[in-house]
Amino acid sequence: MAEQKKMVDEITSMEEDFAKWYTDVVRKAELASYSSVRGCMVIRPYGTALWENVRDELDSRFKATGHENVMMPLFIPESLLQKEKDHVEGFAPEVAWITHGGEEKLQERLCVRPTSEVLFCDHYSEVIHSYRDLPKLYNQWCSVVRWEKTTRPFLRTMEFFWQEGHTMHETAREAMEETELMLNVYADFAENCLAIPVVKGKKTDKEKFAGAVATYTIEALMHDGKALQSGTSHYFGDDFSRAFDIQFTGRDNTLQYPHQTSWGMSSRIIGAIIMTHGDDNGLVLPPKVAPVQVVVLPIAMHKEGVLEKAAELTKTLSKFCRVKLDGSDNSAGWKFAEYEMKGVPLRLEIGPRDIEKNQCVLVRRDNREKTFVSLDELETKIPQLLEAVHKGLYEKALKRREEMTYTVSNFEEMKDYADNKPGFIKAMWCGKLECEEKLKEEAGVSSRCIPFEQEKISETCVACGEAAEDMLYWGKAY
Amino acid sequence: MAEQKKMVDEITSMEEDFAKWYTDVVRKAELASYSSVRGCMVIRPYGTALWENVRDELDSRFKATGHENVMMPLFIPESLLQKEKDHVEGFAPEVAWITHGGEEKLQERLCVRPTSEVLFCDHYSEVIHSYRDLPKLYNQWCSVVRWEKTTRPFLRTMEFFWQEGHTMHETAREAMEETELMLNVYADFAENCLAIPVVKGKKTDKEKFAGAVATYTIEALMHDGKALQSGTSHYFGDDFSRAFDIQFTGRDNTLQYPHQTSWGMSSRIIGAIIMTHGDDNGLVLPPKVAPVQVVVLPIAMHKEGVLEKAAELTKTLSKFCRVKLDGSDNSAGWKFAEYEMKGVPLRLEIGPRDIEKNQCVLVRRDNREKTFVSLDELETKIPQLLEAVHKGLYEKALKRREEMTYTVSNFEEMKDYADNKPGFIKAMWCGKLECEEKLKEEAGVSSRCIPFEQEKISETCVACGEAAEDMLYWGKAY
Repeated sequence: MAEQKKMVDEITSMEEDFAKWYTDVVRKAELASYSSVRGCMVIRPYGTALWENVRDELDSRFKATGHENVMMPLFIPESLLQKEKDHVEGFAPEVAWITHGGEEKLQERLCVRPTSEVLFCDHYSEVIHSYRDLPKLYNQWCSVVRWEKTTRPFLRTMEFFWQEGHTMHETAREAMEETELMLNVYADFAENCLAIPVVKGKKTDKEKFAGAVATYTIEALMHDGKALQSGTSHYFGDDFSRAFDIQFTGRDNTLQYPHQTSWGMSSRIIGAIIMTHGDDNGLVLPPKVAPVQVVVLPIAMHKEGVLEKAAELTKTLSKFCRVKLDGSDNSAGWKFAEYEMKGVPLRLEIGPRDIEKNQCVLVRRDNREKTFVSLDELETKIPQLLEAVHKGLYEKALKRREEMTYTVSNFEEMKDYADNKPGFIKAMWCGKLECEEKLKEEAGVSSRCIPFEQEKISETCVACGEAAEDMLYWGKAY
Repeated sequence: MAEQKKMVDEITSMEEDFAKWYTDVVRKAELASYSSVRGCMVIRPYGTALWENVRDELDSRFKATGHENVMMPLFIPESLLQKEKDHVEGFAPEVAWITHGGEEKLQERLCVRPTSEVLFCDHYSEVIHSYRDLPKLYNQWCSVVRWEKTTRPFLRTMEFFWQEGHTMHETAREAMEETELMLNVYADFAENCLAIPVVKGKKTDKEKFAGAVATYTIEALMHDGKALQSGTSHYFGDDFSRAFDIQFTGRDNTLQYPHQTSWGMSSRIIGAIIMTHGDDNGLVLPPKVAPVQVVVLPIAMHKEGVLEKAAELTKTLSKFCRVKLDGSDNSAGWKFAEYEMKGVPLRLEIGPRDIEKNQCVLVRRDNREKTFVSLDELETKIPQLLEAVHKGLYEKALKRREEMTYTVSNFEEMKDYADNKPGFIKAMWCGKLECEEKLKEEAGVSSRCIPFEQEKISETCVACGEAAEDMLYWGKAY
């Protein structure tokens, strides 16, 4: 056997050490690696291709809902950051400060944007004058920086990649509709593109975005029972408009403040993909964003005509799916393990006997199911199988989430489940901050959201026993 | 007539004040606006859409030549920047320094990347071990920051957008071939996509990139006779490999240093588009990257069926070109001026009489030529007309460049032309730095490139009169 490019060695099993399993997968599937820059990742070609597919899918949804992309500055002058009180309090402790340009000390410090509300507002104050200038439906793709103490690839890094939508509207109602619309876009994308089931809801005041009136979220449950906030949509009212003196002449000829939203999804979503679908053999990618949907592996490659046939098939397949041929001299066993590790949804094997029978073998990554398919039927069978993988992944994730979602009605139960049952815990809440803080401190769970789909579990708050207002999802979170 | 959203007021004519014409076009075509952040632009939706088309066209050329995208950190620790001597000398004076993260003073300063050679090398030292790991053909799309004193939108800004390719190869020859390949990709893109004729050549040592062995460039001539360096491709030899201790086991089992290239094209290219094709009515966009290729304008819109027919046509056209309908209540005259200002390549007018005759009028932006076209022939005629606009723009630009390219053979002539004839000046050079500096100081021209297509103008250097080595393009530059 020829020298192998590298060995596919064992990855830590999920059961043994989930955190280590995660970093093993990130590293061995070559999604990202650490850099010499503390807290910053190098996103490698495979990870970048995955992110580009996420970006393109989201971007087309944004454009279909009337949004336009812009590119805003990387820096925010300190005085601009300070214009909205709650916002600066939330972000100032975690920004990177630029004090020098070349040799020259700056008169005013600049921070690297941790988010861009103030930059958009600064621009909006220049371009919004009349109700005819509204709505402004802008988005940008960029990276932002937040000074984090501990970091993990994709989940929490100092610099991360995201999109941030920032919109301005004539009325509060329109802005609230936008907030909801974009939350639904995120939920649709998570479920129909990434096969990740999500709970839609509202954040409590404690957990909302700094400066927002209300924050909405989609929450997903990871394999280890921890929650991952996967996308957020914020309604700001006119607080920033007032702080930035953005005014427009309304239909009634009076000066008015526009109403604002922002919404974001970040490279964290790659962490969600890994921890929702992955298994002990590595990554499992949802077909709609997988950089390679089908890997073609010639079997008994030294036999005449096999590699040629595999190359011919690859060319045909490239017309309707993302396909890669591995004609390297690594062993078939090595290749099987390698592309399982990389989470490629379908493996196509073709050897001399298959060629004789005008067929090939298709193996699903998610359940290892094998199908013999005639070479004449690939154009219909492969899309069907990719769809089946998508559906299989979604259903498996949904089933797991349902099995790991618990209901508790008093504080003792909450503590017990929080300690012993990783997952979502549904429980009633009175709406008081002190109860939320007690649950955090004494049971170790944070509120994930007030779901839009409410149930009445009991009459009383799980923390204080007084009259409850809402049912919430609680849990441990990334 | 209804209230108009805004007036298309006059822009300064090119003849009167070219610099003011340029900023007028940038502002009034809504490509970009200034921000509160010194030296940083806000790239508005129209400018961003243009940049995204540039990006997508280039990106598909990079992928077709085997390159993969990655995403590298935004920051470079000071010690990492200092690893390659010439490189740090070139860039350290113009970087932005981060000294604090939140409240905490950093132990080591970080700069915001001015370019990413050192970040790629740091990563390559981790992932390159064997000749089997080569070549590495990476690219990234990002923004970089250089602390500029004076700034002009797109042409020179503190933060600018670009792509930077960074590749590693087994042999010097392969790396040199890559350098040349990517220069050709840029030239092909400039000419066949942007309709900008370019001169390909090599930079002198004085003008080459900090740390490079050789820099190649494509140079374009702007409307005012100044040159714009539009894309560069650098060959590094193994200097960085040695500085970063990147070694691989070669085919002969010895440890070797790989050979490196980098290449970049930036948002400056938007400045080149504006200053190559624009006229006194505003922007003129090359069809292949124009965000809107055809604007549909209903004439006598109040007449029954006109707006409906225009909307129906727009829908049909959207299948084969980028099309926009303007059904607003602004006057036809206002709309004509607005879309001329925005440089939309084709204007489609349709009124009640056209509908009767089953035809419409197509007007070219570049030469205002009108064509009546049957509504049944649009799918063939529009692509033909877009191609004709592209060709027209290229030929016009090439003709202007030829008319503005002069040949001189002694220093007096050089001074005379430099003072009185804006354009490229071809002249012989002996190869000595002092002659290049003399031409800069006394004639005000810098060397643009040593073109691949050489001519022998005379035997002697235009500056010192000694034996000449090469013919160079000289000029004033952006």
